[in-house]
Amino acid sequence: MDLMQAIESRRDTRHFTDEAVPKAVLDKALMAALHGPSVGLSQPCRFLDVSDSPRAALIENFTSQRSKAETALDEPDRLRLHRSLKLESLAEAPILLATFCAYPEEEYTIGVIGNMRAVEWSCACAIQNLWLSLTADGYGAGWVTILDLKAIAARLKTPENWEPMGILCIGKPATDYEGRPMLEHLGWKNRELNLDAFYSVAHLS
Amino acid sequence: MDLMQAIESRRDTRHFTDEAVPKAVLDKALMAALHGPSVGLSQPCRFLDVSDSPRAALIENFTSQRSKAETALDEPDRLRLHRSLKLESLAEAPILLATFCAYPEEEYTIGVIGNMRAVEWSCACAIQNLWLSLTADGYGAGWVTILDLKAIAARLKTPENWEPMGILCIGKPATDYEGRPMLEHLGWKNRELNLDAFYSVAHLS
Repeated sequence: MDLMQAIESRRDTRHFTDEAVPKAVLDKALMAALHGPSVGLSQPCRFLDVSDSPRAALIENFTSQRSKAETALDEPDRLRLHRSLKLESLAEAPILLATFCAYPEEEYTIGVIGNMRAVEWSCACAIQNLWLSLTADGYGAGWVTILDLKAIAARLKTPENWEPMGILCIGKPATDYEGRPMLEHLGWKNRELNLDAFYSVAHLS
Repeated sequence: MDLMQAIESRRDTRHFTDEAVPKAVLDKALMAALHGPSVGLSQPCRFLDVSDSPRAALIENFTSQRSKAETALDEPDRLRLHRSLKLESLAEAPILLATFCAYPEEEYTIGVIGNMRAVEWSCACAIQNLWLSLTADGYGAGWVTILDLKAIAARLKTPENWEPMGILCIGKPATDYEGRPMLEHLGWKNRELNLDAFYSVAHLS
């Protein structure tokens, strides 16, 4: 698929069919992730496939965090709308990847002196590559972060230098939300596509 | 350009020709960035074009941070190699974009309860889209983070909720480093492309 077509049609998907994801599609997407840029060639992204684990604890984790988040919503109409949104697909997505940033253990990493979190930024770039690859092959992903991430790391007994970055739910999209972000399609918020809101010329003194 | 071709040929470029970047190419890349996923549709990425500013302060900022980083390198051969690496193109890249994450000022953002830094991850996804778009059009970018980022934000008088994420140097690549990451090409570190090092099946108890 053409790059721009993949970029424009990629959705944060929360609605999947029950169709399985072929291993070749997942492997290709993971290989796309490995080709992402990484600060100092640190390649920090780690994917733990928890698709075949019992999912009840994960769903409970999400439900609890979602309820906690909703306590910050005072306006009744917004709260009602928020409660109607489907914000994950932890029960039904064929593939669940718990995703982590492995902070480098090597003595010296080029490029992190400005902000050590550049390694997390590298992971996000890898995830974006994975997401685009899935999109190009007719599949999709939803990145779920409404979770007690530390609790997931604890259950997976991951090393201490692994920062949890959420769960990627992967499968065949049941809808494309009419070609718009789901949150816009459902009336939560509109996407801004005016470049002037994001880019301007500035003077560095 | 085909997605996978763009993903595989994208380089973290530090060597540019002096060819100008057409406005249409930059605008398309910025539009690709706007189509990136963002947590709760927060669209937090901000680009300040500082191409036409005096660059001396920026170069001095880099040089100082690079020297500071090098104090951590004890091994003489590694230090010598590190000193020979070209790690930025702040003087010569036709376009410099100072890049920021605008932490949301709205009352409620979906998806940040697990980790507020998910907004920075969104910016990184946007940057990856921008980078791929440039690659597909025959241009390239280098993401420079060996900088006192807060000092750059101060010089640009950006709002307090804007987290600086570095400078994107953009132009026409003078080399593709023989199709490999520059740091591998120059013998600093090898890229790992074995999936097993990044992906495994795990059990979520």
